Amino acid sequence: MKLRLFIWLVLMLVLPVWAQQTAGLNLMPWPAEIQVQDGRFYLDDSFRVAIHGAADEALYRYATRILRLLSGRTGLFFPQDYLRPGQAVSSAALVIRCQRVGKVKLGEDESYALKINRQGILLEAPTTIGAMRGLETFLQLLDADSTGYFFPFVDIRDRPRFPWRGLLIDVARHFMPPEVIKRNLDGMAAVKLNVLHWHLSDDQGFRVESNVYPRLHRMGSDGFYYTQEQIRDIVHYAAERGIRVVPEFDVPGHATSWLVGHPEIGSAPGPYRVERKWGIFYPALNPALDTTYAFLDRFFGEMAELFPDEYFHIGGDELEHGSNHPARDWNQNPDVQVLKKRENLPDNAAVQAYFNRRVQAILKKHGKKMVGWDEILHPDLPRDIVIQSWRGRDAMVKAARMGYRSILSNGYYIDLIYPASKHYLNDPLPSDLPLTDPQRRLILGGEATMWAEFVSPETIDSRIWPRTAAIAERLWSPPEINDVKAMYRRLENITFQLEERGLTHEKNYPMLLRRLCRYRDIEPLKTLVDVLEPVKGYRRPHLRQYTSYSPLTRVVDAARPDAPVARHFRDAVEQYLQNSTSRDSLRRVIVRNLIRWKNNHSRLQPLIRISPVLQEVEPLSANLCELATLGLEAINAIEANHPLPEKWFQHAQLLFQQAREPHGEAELVVVDAVEKLAEKATSR
Amino acid sequence: MKLRLFIWLVLMLVLPVWAQQTAGLNLMPWPAEIQVQDGRFYLDDSFRVAIHGAADEALYRYATRILRLLSGRTGLFFPQDYLRPGQAVSSAALVIRCQRVGKVKLGEDESYALKINRQGILLEAPTTIGAMRGLETFLQLLDADSTGYFFPFVDIRDRPRFPWRGLLIDVARHFMPPEVIKRNLDGMAAVKLNVLHWHLSDDQGFRVESNVYPRLHRMGSDGFYYTQEQIRDIVHYAAERGIRVVPEFDVPGHATSWLVGHPEIGSAPGPYRVERKWGIFYPALNPALDTTYAFLDRFFGEMAELFPDEYFHIGGDELEHGSNHPARDWNQNPDVQVLKKRENLPDNAAVQAYFNRRVQAILKKHGKKMVGWDEILHPDLPRDIVIQSWRGRDAMVKAARMGYRSILSNGYYIDLIYPASKHYLNDPLPSDLPLTDPQRRLILGGEATMWAEFVSPETIDSRIWPRTAAIAERLWSPPEINDVKAMYRRLENITFQLEERGLTHEKNYPMLLRRLCRYRDIEPLKTLVDVLEPVKGYRRPHLRQYTSYSPLTRVVDAARPDAPVARHFRDAVEQYLQNSTSRDSLRRVIVRNLIRWKNNHSRLQPLIRISPVLQEVEPLSANLCELATLGLEAINAIEANHPLPEKWFQHAQLLFQQAREPHGEAELVVVDAVEKLAEKATSR
Repeated sequence: MKLRLFIWLVLMLVLPVWAQQTAGLNLMPWPAEIQVQDGRFYLDDSFRVAIHGAADEALYRYATRILRLLSGRTGLFFPQDYLRPGQAVSSAALVIRCQRVGKVKLGEDESYALKINRQGILLEAPTTIGAMRGLETFLQLLDADSTGYFFPFVDIRDRPRFPWRGLLIDVARHFMPPEVIKRNLDGMAAVKLNVLHWHLSDDQGFRVESNVYPRLHRMGSDGFYYTQEQIRDIVHYAAERGIRVVPEFDVPGHATSWLVGHPEIGSAPGPYRVERKWGIFYPALNPALDTTYAFLDRFFGEMAELFPDEYFHIGGDELEHGSNHPARDWNQNPDVQVLKKRENLPDNAAVQAYFNRRVQAILKKHGKKMVGWDEILHPDLPRDIVIQSWRGRDAMVKAARMGYRSILSNGYYIDLIYPASKHYLNDPLPSDLPLTDPQRRLILGGEATMWAEFVSPETIDSRIWPRTAAIAERLWSPPEINDVKAMYRRLENITFQLEERGLTHEKNYPMLLRRLCRYRDIEPLKTLVDVLEPVKGYRRPHLRQYTSYSPLTRVVDAARPDAPVARHFRDAVEQYLQNSTSRDSLRRVIVRNLIRWKNNHSRLQPLIRISPVLQEVEPLSANLCELATLGLEAINAIEANHPLPEKWFQHAQLLFQQAREPHGEAELVVVDAVEKLAEKATSR
Repeated sequence: MKLRLFIWLVLMLVLPVWAQQTAGLNLMPWPAEIQVQDGRFYLDDSFRVAIHGAADEALYRYATRILRLLSGRTGLFFPQDYLRPGQAVSSAALVIRCQRVGKVKLGEDESYALKINRQGILLEAPTTIGAMRGLETFLQLLDADSTGYFFPFVDIRDRPRFPWRGLLIDVARHFMPPEVIKRNLDGMAAVKLNVLHWHLSDDQGFRVESNVYPRLHRMGSDGFYYTQEQIRDIVHYAAERGIRVVPEFDVPGHATSWLVGHPEIGSAPGPYRVERKWGIFYPALNPALDTTYAFLDRFFGEMAELFPDEYFHIGGDELEHGSNHPARDWNQNPDVQVLKKRENLPDNAAVQAYFNRRVQAILKKHGKKMVGWDEILHPDLPRDIVIQSWRGRDAMVKAARMGYRSILSNGYYIDLIYPASKHYLNDPLPSDLPLTDPQRRLILGGEATMWAEFVSPETIDSRIWPRTAAIAERLWSPPEINDVKAMYRRLENITFQLEERGLTHEKNYPMLLRRLCRYRDIEPLKTLVDVLEPVKGYRRPHLRQYTSYSPLTRVVDAARPDAPVARHFRDAVEQYLQNSTSRDSLRRVIVRNLIRWKNNHSRLQPLIRISPVLQEVEPLSANLCELATLGLEAINAIEANHPLPEKWFQHAQLLFQQAREPHGEAELVVVDAVEKLAEKATSR
């Protein structure tokens, strides 16, 4: 009891100091251990970097890029051009020291220690990949005052919580040119993600050049595919940033695009056409034919050489998906029925397990370990496969109990447009998960998934970033780092650092609005879209029929997940209603917003009249105006301490209901906040 | 006399109608012939395109892209996915009809006729390339009102004035990744430019992979070069847009990067290092060695296959450049002295002519015609070469008189940051040029030149666009289309259409400011930078020593040529002082700007205190504040009709002088306008 009290007292003394010292730092992901000391290391134009110990070209180039970014941010003209092995660097301010060259593989040591003090900056790491992670932290530490740019004195010891921290990019639904992938790899490196899960084939497109089966990309891609040189270039680009590339070729379902050129391995006679709609479709590889496995053997053999990572993703999802989607083409295929009997396979799940066993053997022959979505979980498969849990955590827990390793994507579906906070609080391995320690070690990490039904190269970055930085922190940092407010504060800085790496999530927002306004002043439209978000979850395709060539340039596409203006408004209302000390300034913020929204509808209408694409959001604009009017009435009543009548609230509720309705697949995200004001205004 | 009067009367009647009907159109380049009729063709979601007559895959893909852009701008869900040969398209609103597949070569027919009326839209062209040009005009015609999107009824017959309309991009001084080239090709196609002049080697870098001499790119590029697959991909991308790619390999000077890996063909013993500074340097190929020509034969042979265009640029500039830059390495090389005697070459110009003759013979053998900068002009060379005039127009005129064809770049040096108007009024072939008609036909056109000492992938688009659209119009449209005000009005629309093609000149401006502000509110900085431009001409490197790895992220780099806010202010002052009818509203515009500028300095200072990179522009901010104060005094005096004393003007002039001084290589571009106000305020 005494010890506890003592610890508590120490914490009470230490924590505020810690919080104060680290409050200004914009690190993300937050390091495992950090101590901030008094003092600053000022940067000047004599700044030099030296690399000691083991190092490869990749680290030299990485450090050169960091040097250029530092020069770019500060405008300082540094003396070094390209860092290269064998250079003698005198009086280097930053010294990097590695023990060995890191391998771009699962489980590689990514730890580092970064010390900044009077003597200079020392970055030490067991591997060059750890040094890369440390260089990103170093860059994030840059600060400035009126005398110049500086780094705070710190002592950081950092290492990832999970070894598999990934981002899935689906390039099948909408093709993403190489530069989109590259700029996202740069963004991933900036927040210490280490796996690009590249979803390369699906019903709507086959995106890799195959030399052994060229009909795959020629007939399955509409001309939009990566050449093998581009693939190699991107894999190399990723490796230079310590990022693994795990390719996914989804089989046996999600395979229409394969069958356009190769109907002979399909379960139905065909002919097949590249799918243009979204959804789950029947085409599937034929599991009963030896030719199917011979085909996969040759094709996966080719791909195994192209993608050097040890892991290879075979999809395996949604062949049978709930009662709405049976495996029709298997059910109707006589060969499959023969196979079932011959192999004693009671149902399609068993057929798929049979298929997976044979595929796994093929992959093993080519030196690969199989990864698949949770549908592939089956005790017949060897224990070195990895399960990716997407329909829930159950598969992950079940897999761990059966001795399988797994990664979590459930809760990280960024295409569903939920706020960063939701993903951030989704711990892959909460302390109360009923698993033993050895079982817990089988949880390798997680992946954010950027499914691409509703993104184009113009908008994809805004769906990935900045929210994925919060997921990156969840997968890297200790579980105790889970303060949502602090996360958002840092995220608002990190988002611009990500933009610096070439990502377009910030700068394309006004660009998309300009086109919608036909290049007139975007301000009234921006005021509206600042408080809109696309509808969440799987709702969008239910509101309108989309195809792969539908425009992704409308208001719903310009609107961003986790709309910052709306979030700030909600936060202000919450704090205001909690009687915060800064109640007065909060009230001003709230009122200023409400007045702007109230006046905005009449400002936006002339724009709508010359830009028909905006007509669909006119009801949202009208609702925002009415909502703001109610909000102003409410806040005036609260301030006057003069409760509004129940009748007023009933009228208000009708409006809240109406204002929650989406239009043009977008929805107002300040209704709850105004409703809270209204509740307060009517409560006695 | 009577006929003249009649013509004059007809013009007086017709011109205003013409001006009124076409005033709203945002076409650029302006078509050769256009008639606007009453009526509108409204677009709806049944819109379909049909291609008849001769057509290749390139046109089908081009039309598909236009369809997607149209869908993107309007948000309409069109029924067609990819246009393909052999499709039966019923009730197409747009019918394209070509007589033959065009060739991507100099002089190809690019004309088209576009008719929009009640019956629909008919685009007819002798070649598929003409159809591409017409599709861009079609897209530019899109307009809207409250009932929907429409195209005005028009009858357009259009053809280019010059067959060679180019943009030079220097990728040697700063490497530009493939996507930078591609998005600029898209921009070029949008304004009907048809030549990418790709400056691929210079002292600072050798940017093409060579299989016959891999030391060229391996040792001369710091790892930044295009692979041959990337080159082929870009050449194909250009050809699909009817754009020729003319490669430039600059010899015998500007060749340091060649010699790093191949000192044996240099004029000095070496060793050589990739040049990091800007300027003119001594390294040059050795013209006296047969091995040099054997080397060029092999290398140009390889490049001749990679670049299918008939023309091949060998540079040839600045070997001897004025008295400051003799051809030192030739002068000091004993072989060259022997060569001079042996071949009876009186000076280095003659040696270069000898070199060029041999190079020309090599190129001819490989099926290429030689292009070079004006230094190569020499009567010994055959008449099928092309001279690119850069030091003045003299070489162009002289070349024409000698029977050589030429293209003009003098006056189109966009890297020198002059306003679009200056380039726009630079007619390559004014009617008073003393040349005969056959000589005039030798003037093929012109090229804007994007030399890359001071641009990065982040900023290059803002140096090329939108100004190059004005040059594109000069080279395409009839010479009578030369109204600067009308050009700027259209340019302000076209600039956003170029952004739609992926160019970053608009959206990177706030991005660059955000980094400079360390992600704080950019408004005070933007207010300043909106009236700044980089220093003009060749002044920048004289103000500060730059290298190829200096940061290009400072205020001068965010500042844009032809700053629109400043131009609008200057126009307003000019019109105000001309006692325009809208004098009152002009005064309000002027005063609003002046007040904002006056107040801005104190708003910017807190930002400067936390962002040291801004310190260098603090004097500009202070000067703008003082300038605005004077401007307000002046306009008040003008309005009060109460002239200010001479002493006031003398004080003001000191400030104007001070305010014209650049800081951080940027300068205020509203000083003249305020000075005009001051002059008016003191005049009686």
